[in-house]
Amino acid sequence: MTYHAPLADMDHALKYSAGLSTALEQGFFGDLSMDDIDAVLTEASRMASEVIAPLNRVGDLNGAIFKDGAVTTAPGWKKAYRAWCQGGWNGLASPAEWGGQGLPHVVNAACTEMWNAASAAFGVGPMLTMGAIDAINVHGSEELKRRYLGKLVTGEWTGTMHLTEPQAGSDVGALRTRAERAGDGTYRLKGQKIFITYGEHDLTDNIIHLVLARLPDAPPGTRGISLFLVPKFLLNPDGSPGVRNDVRAHAVEHKLGIHASPTCTMILGDQGGAIGFLVGQENAGMACMFTMMNRARLAVGLQGVGIAERAMQQALAYARERKQGRTPGMPATESAPIIAHPDVKRMLMTMRALTQAARTICYATAMAIDRAERGTDKAARHDAHDRASLLTPVAKAFSSDIGVEVASLGVQVHGGMGFVEETGAAQHLRDARIAPIYEGTNGIQAIDLVTRKLPLSGGGAVEAYIGELRRIVGAVNATNDPALGGSGARLEEAVESLARATAWMLAKLGNGADEALAGATPYLRLFGTAAGGCLLAQQALAALRLNADAGPRAALARFFAENIAVHARALERTIVEGGSAVIAAEAALAH
Amino acid sequence: MTYHAPLADMDHALKYSAGLSTALEQGFFGDLSMDDIDAVLTEASRMASEVIAPLNRVGDLNGAIFKDGAVTTAPGWKKAYRAWCQGGWNGLASPAEWGGQGLPHVVNAACTEMWNAASAAFGVGPMLTMGAIDAINVHGSEELKRRYLGKLVTGEWTGTMHLTEPQAGSDVGALRTRAERAGDGTYRLKGQKIFITYGEHDLTDNIIHLVLARLPDAPPGTRGISLFLVPKFLLNPDGSPGVRNDVRAHAVEHKLGIHASPTCTMILGDQGGAIGFLVGQENAGMACMFTMMNRARLAVGLQGVGIAERAMQQALAYARERKQGRTPGMPATESAPIIAHPDVKRMLMTMRALTQAARTICYATAMAIDRAERGTDKAARHDAHDRASLLTPVAKAFSSDIGVEVASLGVQVHGGMGFVEETGAAQHLRDARIAPIYEGTNGIQAIDLVTRKLPLSGGGAVEAYIGELRRIVGAVNATNDPALGGSGARLEEAVESLARATAWMLAKLGNGADEALAGATPYLRLFGTAAGGCLLAQQALAALRLNADAGPRAALARFFAENIAVHARALERTIVEGGSAVIAAEAALAH
Repeated sequence: MTYHAPLADMDHALKYSAGLSTALEQGFFGDLSMDDIDAVLTEASRMASEVIAPLNRVGDLNGAIFKDGAVTTAPGWKKAYRAWCQGGWNGLASPAEWGGQGLPHVVNAACTEMWNAASAAFGVGPMLTMGAIDAINVHGSEELKRRYLGKLVTGEWTGTMHLTEPQAGSDVGALRTRAERAGDGTYRLKGQKIFITYGEHDLTDNIIHLVLARLPDAPPGTRGISLFLVPKFLLNPDGSPGVRNDVRAHAVEHKLGIHASPTCTMILGDQGGAIGFLVGQENAGMACMFTMMNRARLAVGLQGVGIAERAMQQALAYARERKQGRTPGMPATESAPIIAHPDVKRMLMTMRALTQAARTICYATAMAIDRAERGTDKAARHDAHDRASLLTPVAKAFSSDIGVEVASLGVQVHGGMGFVEETGAAQHLRDARIAPIYEGTNGIQAIDLVTRKLPLSGGGAVEAYIGELRRIVGAVNATNDPALGGSGARLEEAVESLARATAWMLAKLGNGADEALAGATPYLRLFGTAAGGCLLAQQALAALRLNADAGPRAALARFFAENIAVHARALERTIVEGGSAVIAAEAALAH
Repeated sequence: MTYHAPLADMDHALKYSAGLSTALEQGFFGDLSMDDIDAVLTEASRMASEVIAPLNRVGDLNGAIFKDGAVTTAPGWKKAYRAWCQGGWNGLASPAEWGGQGLPHVVNAACTEMWNAASAAFGVGPMLTMGAIDAINVHGSEELKRRYLGKLVTGEWTGTMHLTEPQAGSDVGALRTRAERAGDGTYRLKGQKIFITYGEHDLTDNIIHLVLARLPDAPPGTRGISLFLVPKFLLNPDGSPGVRNDVRAHAVEHKLGIHASPTCTMILGDQGGAIGFLVGQENAGMACMFTMMNRARLAVGLQGVGIAERAMQQALAYARERKQGRTPGMPATESAPIIAHPDVKRMLMTMRALTQAARTICYATAMAIDRAERGTDKAARHDAHDRASLLTPVAKAFSSDIGVEVASLGVQVHGGMGFVEETGAAQHLRDARIAPIYEGTNGIQAIDLVTRKLPLSGGGAVEAYIGELRRIVGAVNATNDPALGGSGARLEEAVESLARATAWMLAKLGNGADEALAGATPYLRLFGTAAGGCLLAQQALAALRLNADAGPRAALARFFAENIAVHARALERTIVEGGSAVIAAEAALAH
């Protein structure tokens, strides 16, 4: 089983839905051209298929082995990680100042999808290093930047995010790890962290932990959290790793999937205190954490897309090859590839349509991050920042949810072979299942979308986005191309359901927050459904306009509109009318 | 993590939705009383919770070990199986003539749910033995019955179903295993079978394989298949196991879930030929197979229900215990159990509502089987047989699909802990994932429902069922109880969507079969959704009438109607309008 990056699908989504063509035309990325970007993506696809993808099952079978405080990664892992770093992939979107290539986030997003499609257990490591780079770059002192960023950007060292504690998961404010001022500007940390991805490993000669902790005089809750940089090895004056710091892995979890990613329980300071360096201001750690977290959330969405793509490719290949049964009119002595059966087609189309929709939402989010960083005027940067903030929870949750759904359909397409581990289809489902959980559960994403993102700019951010979706619907209706079937009507219903549900949500936020919270998850799904449907239609329109690949893109968009977007009205109803039943649930859940 | 059989929910579903109260009042089961049945179920629940449930994780961790042709079951498995047999559970619904207890199938259905909730890997074994008993009892010669049924009914021997071959999965007619007439009335079988559940194990001193094979002069396809009884050990004249037959396990699969259930590759006849005894007539094996298969399909549905119930119980317990975050107005120093959060309530209610709906559909199917067997007049038996035939694919596919969905929600409720194998939530998802695949994939079930079951009695069978659903809707609308919220309107829409989609399907079957096949899966889901919603409402109405447990049952029914049944219209649309997009999928699936 191999993986081939779907470069044509990625390219089309980038150019015609995520707005990359426009951005390039506007000279937004200097003299960078689409040809340059295509060259990068082609090179990335080679790295993903040839170097990383073959390790996916090796990693699953061998896992990351914990012994005497050390973690040994799976065979081949180290070599692949080095080759990947040498290719410059870790610092693709990092600032040139620190050795990065300074390429657009949207290009890095496409690459992130590929690393995770090749191996989610591999991809999740760099995801956290990139988050650490962001946090240090935005919030760290000049000295911290100078001492740590270079090696993090090359990937010579990796980064981690130490957030969760046994009593503090979704509720970060409940964390208890303590940091005491040492008097010399450094801090001493003591505590226990759990679920620390790549908290310990043998890939690099240092690991840079970013640790949330509480000062002795900190206010309670999230306003009393500070962020610290805690290196595994303290640096010598020349910057090389020196003395071991008082932070160590205590155990590694046995997980459903991503076996090759070591998920560690970490002990800080049981030998007196881990030496930490403050990142940003005391008690302002939440802002730093959100810098790391937002990028990581988008990356988790891309992980969902990547696994979905790989599961889809595998199912498609199997469905073309496996012969079983006959189509109407076929002689009894012959048998058809199962892709000929309408029910199998439905599964494959669902897989492909959901994957491309989620991919495009993620790319559009990354593009908004680029615009927020590079926009020439303040208003444009503000609007782009709003857009990125609005779309991030959708990118994370919708994409990771469909990652699980698509991987499960992939198992189903394989029939009995899908349940046999050797086939590999089951691994995709196991691996995909973490993405709706980590970096903020999808329930938390939905609540974030409803309570924090809808009110952005007084509701203006979401209004502007719905306006864009309406313009796509208008274009579909204007085209009236028969290849798009009933797409216009179905997408119009979906977008209007989203508009009504949004207005309802905004009204409820002030008054009836429980009902808003009860509808948050179906609201996020409605958002992803309406947006995904419109974005696929937009891509079909571009293909029809360009007369390139129009048949497949129109068929996919139509399938989404007529078979998936039709659920929008039901989701609206669930949000607007179904909340009381959720709130009234106590009775039914009491026993 | 423990399992407690939800006796009150089972009881209520049996009595007020599956029609058990009416059947008992009619004296349908002789002098059997509800008290007798409750005593049986209470005893079964004890066996399930105390003896089988503790082995679920042991079985997952140890699996069934294959070595030198023998399979060693997981520690404790043998002892539990013996205790279970000694309790008489294997022969609960088997004919008294062969040592069974002759209890109703509907009671056995409730017990089957419990065995599978306790351990799906355990439950799947007896499921096949019971299917073998049915096939031999209905189609076997008197001699075969006399020699084999007694020990199969006690469970001293187990039964298997040998259907699948590498090239013959969903397409049973493609099988190649050969059976030659030996001249003495017996046959010699040669071939290879795959995915044979409990094909080899150490639980009993004999295994009775029912094998589909082809005579040398058989017509091609399904009309040339015969069924043979192939014992692992040939019987001595006194009926005890004697000489080893030429059938053996060659390997055991490494699977995503149900690790403790040995899934074997079987070799028949490589030492000259496995001795087989014909069951039924030559070339009439498909009818025999459907006898086994139909019961097994219902049992797989019950397996979905059982796993869903256990996943729900575990998630509910965790949600009550785990504290995280605050509800509005709570002091910052406190934290609430996560069940207090509306989004978690939504997940738990979805789990509970889908589980009880699927449970009731399965029980109603079992009740129809009882009525088909025991009905006093021919017309009633015919109608009941139609009903059982109609509901069986829905019971299998809807229940096994929701089994996966509910188990996946169970992982989500647990957050990060759900992804850690020790928690047990992930095992439910892994175990549940087989049920939509085996005993005919859910795609095959949907096609069976649409192409074979809707046309039963000229469409009269489905019409009668929809009539019953309409009567429930009428009763909900007549009651107008505020506890049921908008249930009446939502269920009416769902049932009318089902009615329209049914009429469309019946019209398409003659003319446009591809479109009917394209819509089969959403049609089955619509059927399960409309039926499930009505059955929960029926149970709520009964509770309101009896003034017992009315609050919880009304809340559950209302939740289903307002949050799940609302998708009926979208499913109808997908069926009626979305098929062309599926058939047009070639373009989008070509690359």
